[in-house]
Amino acid sequence: MPLPDEAIFPHATGAASETVAAHQEPQELIFHAGWFCPYVQRTWISLEEKGVPYQYKEVNPYKKEKHFLDINPKGLVPAVEFQGKALYESLVLCEFLDDAYPGYKPSILPGNAYTKAYARIWVDYVGKAFVPAFMRLMQAQEREKRDAARTELYEALRKFAAQVKGPYFLGEEFSLVDIAIVPWITRDYILAEHRSYSRQDVSAEWKRYAEHVEQRESVLKTKSDKYVDIYGRYLRDEAQSEAAKAIRAGRAIP
Amino acid sequence: MPLPDEAIFPHATGAASETVAAHQEPQELIFHAGWFCPYVQRTWISLEEKGVPYQYKEVNPYKKEKHFLDINPKGLVPAVEFQGKALYESLVLCEFLDDAYPGYKPSILPGNAYTKAYARIWVDYVGKAFVPAFMRLMQAQEREKRDAARTELYEALRKFAAQVKGPYFLGEEFSLVDIAIVPWITRDYILAEHRSYSRQDVSAEWKRYAEHVEQRESVLKTKSDKYVDIYGRYLRDEAQSEAAKAIRAGRAIP
Repeated sequence: MPLPDEAIFPHATGAASETVAAHQEPQELIFHAGWFCPYVQRTWISLEEKGVPYQYKEVNPYKKEKHFLDINPKGLVPAVEFQGKALYESLVLCEFLDDAYPGYKPSILPGNAYTKAYARIWVDYVGKAFVPAFMRLMQAQEREKRDAARTELYEALRKFAAQVKGPYFLGEEFSLVDIAIVPWITRDYILAEHRSYSRQDVSAEWKRYAEHVEQRESVLKTKSDKYVDIYGRYLRDEAQSEAAKAIRAGRAIP
Repeated sequence: MPLPDEAIFPHATGAASETVAAHQEPQELIFHAGWFCPYVQRTWISLEEKGVPYQYKEVNPYKKEKHFLDINPKGLVPAVEFQGKALYESLVLCEFLDDAYPGYKPSILPGNAYTKAYARIWVDYVGKAFVPAFMRLMQAQEREKRDAARTELYEALRKFAAQVKGPYFLGEEFSLVDIAIVPWITRDYILAEHRSYSRQDVSAEWKRYAEHVEQRESVLKTKSDKYVDIYGRYLRDEAQSEAAKAIRAGRAIP
């Protein structure tokens, strides 16, 4: 019997489908992606920001093919195949692009050591405080759990928003902090439609930041139309992704 | 009433106390530390590896003083005060030292972009798969939970050990991967004494790696004698650290 997630819509739509079509030629860097995955979008945005040549390959992570598992035993997307060797973990991949393609600008992290470390603290915060709270609200079934999850999410976002220098997190420069969080901003309409979430209810600062960052060209170019179809499984708490299972089990997202 | 963790032993002992004594002079970099904390030890090892000048300041994180909270609102150790500004998060601090002190060698991460990304994948693994498993075993009270936690820990360590090139994780060079995991190796005798953990039961590779890495000079110089006193609270699942509470609540360690 197929896993419930195996039959997901097979390819990107909207603006993202054009970006996919423009990246089919063989390149030194192969980007193993899933059009719907917010972690994938982080790396995808970084590729587009830097203009690194890449070949896009759609992978159904619930129906893994042999070559993909050979290069990436963990089996998660995003993964990058670089000169025949695999790397994975979305944020590791973003930083890898800065390191492997120093001639391609802009850098994803600032050059100043203090600011770079400060940015990493907030990237870490997004992964530990924001994403799990977002997922818990998405997967919460009972009203009380939803209310608790929404409160937790709002608190996490207010803390983040209070640090935004504007228009981007660090100020004028778009950085890894924005990249780390924006895929979930792009998907927050699902929470607005199904979980009584509102950007305005978080704070005016959050709303302003979210509206600005979601219009970044690299974000629009990697955005699909059909996220709601995918997230139906999350909203019913039936999703079988590693992240969904971790949230159900009360574990850190792997 | 004081918190149960407030009355912890107030200073480093053993070899670490000599290292503390040698770092009391004012410096541009102030290292806010807790002698007992494995996260602190990561940053401390990095400082010692690089030979960066630093001033050691002992902080009781359960009894936070005003100046410490002013520079570091999150209130966690380790924290670094650098030119009057605060940074925190152990791994961010380790990488910060590479960035802020490029003239001090060795680098904590390898120079090659692929190897650097590979190292970061495994640093991430230590934080997400190993540390929570270690803590769950430490805090597990019932026999069944202990058995499940031990099995989980052994599996996490076998995966890690299978990647060790030897003698260090990446081969001849000591790196951030070793730094990320070694503070818990230094403390694993507590699991051996109280939770039927055995390095040999994990695997011969793990035992060999652990015995080698714990003898690194920077590890020995930052090691205290009294870890068992601290971990009594964890073994009884009474600890009030943020990490201990997160494990109890089934949340990611902040």
